[in-house]
Amino acid sequence: MTMLPPELLAALHFRYATKAFDSTRKIPAETWDAIEQSLVLTPSSFGLQPWKFLVIENPEIRETLKAASWGQSQVTDASHLVVLTARTDLDKADIDSWVARLSEVQGTPLEALAGLSGMISSFSSSMSASEKQAWNTRQVYIALGQLMTAAAVMGIDTCPLEGISPADYDTILELNGTGYATAVACVLGYRAATDKYATAPKARFAAEKVIGRV
Amino acid sequence: MTMLPPELLAALHFRYATKAFDSTRKIPAETWDAIEQSLVLTPSSFGLQPWKFLVIENPEIRETLKAASWGQSQVTDASHLVVLTARTDLDKADIDSWVARLSEVQGTPLEALAGLSGMISSFSSSMSASEKQAWNTRQVYIALGQLMTAAAVMGIDTCPLEGISPADYDTILELNGTGYATAVACVLGYRAATDKYATAPKARFAAEKVIGRV
Repeated sequence: MTMLPPELLAALHFRYATKAFDSTRKIPAETWDAIEQSLVLTPSSFGLQPWKFLVIENPEIRETLKAASWGQSQVTDASHLVVLTARTDLDKADIDSWVARLSEVQGTPLEALAGLSGMISSFSSSMSASEKQAWNTRQVYIALGQLMTAAAVMGIDTCPLEGISPADYDTILELNGTGYATAVACVLGYRAATDKYATAPKARFAAEKVIGRV
Repeated sequence: MTMLPPELLAALHFRYATKAFDSTRKIPAETWDAIEQSLVLTPSSFGLQPWKFLVIENPEIRETLKAASWGQSQVTDASHLVVLTARTDLDKADIDSWVARLSEVQGTPLEALAGLSGMISSFSSSMSASEKQAWNTRQVYIALGQLMTAAAVMGIDTCPLEGISPADYDTILELNGTGYATAVACVLGYRAATDKYATAPKARFAAEKVIGRV
């Protein structure tokens, strides 16, 4: 069953950056599983998936992360917290690992994927170390976009968290040296009845300002 | 009507990077309007919306852009082509324009938004010119993620296009000097019956590799 245009728009209007979550409500297991699968299914350039998504279940670690997030209550009050991390590199092992997986899933001989492998290698070698990490981080933002939209169409509230200290997150989550670094975080759950932002008019620029026609 | 978890997953499995579009099929007006509105409604950090989305309707310009896209046939064959551009700066005018819009839509006096304005200014002034553009570009990737997911839940096919020459796009679309630069493009429409990629098994890393638990 696909959504009709008005249903999609209702879901996107339902969505807002939830500031106050109902800490007593948990996302049901089947819904959460679909959210995790939506992260796994996120599209990425070349299919490389240069990311790892950390679901933070430990309440003490969530408390510690809250302190690295300007004390935003969502970090501990929301049903779930995901930290979206980006690969810090794009090296031969990354490419080989992806091509091997593609070969395995699609039953394509590795030799037949040599062209793809060469194309990704050539793309990768055109970038500096910092450009690679920036490119990987952009891919992670596709995941953030898909995550918030996927949640919204199922009636789940979210709040993206850019106002965090990625360096502190990396320390708390012991990411340094792992080849992954915190890009952004997102909490998911259910809005509190008291969240005044829930009823604020949705503020966006007029379509004429952001949509152009050529 | 929200989606049930299996419906969301069906939509995400339906989605793939469509390589061959049916050039005879056009997205109906009501559906396309919802897609444009989904772009307008994309969330962004601070709500700044540092982007402009160009819907390329002119067939000759689409032909020219195809040449700047390694000749990928989707650029001309798909029903619609959107070029997602990012603001190249984040200056006082951007902040003032956003705060004024917020005041207008939410009926909040400008004085009451001085704190927000100061916070964004302080954030912006902590970044170099290239960091600002990189930050804006990451926001645009949220839009790309939401766009592909929004289309998929309505049964519309997409193909993100990173394999383009942004500099050539900027020249063709006369973006130089406008304060916006091409970040990425996306085509939308309907898969051709002949697209062999439509039936290829979806290849992603195993969930255990990309989802971690802490």
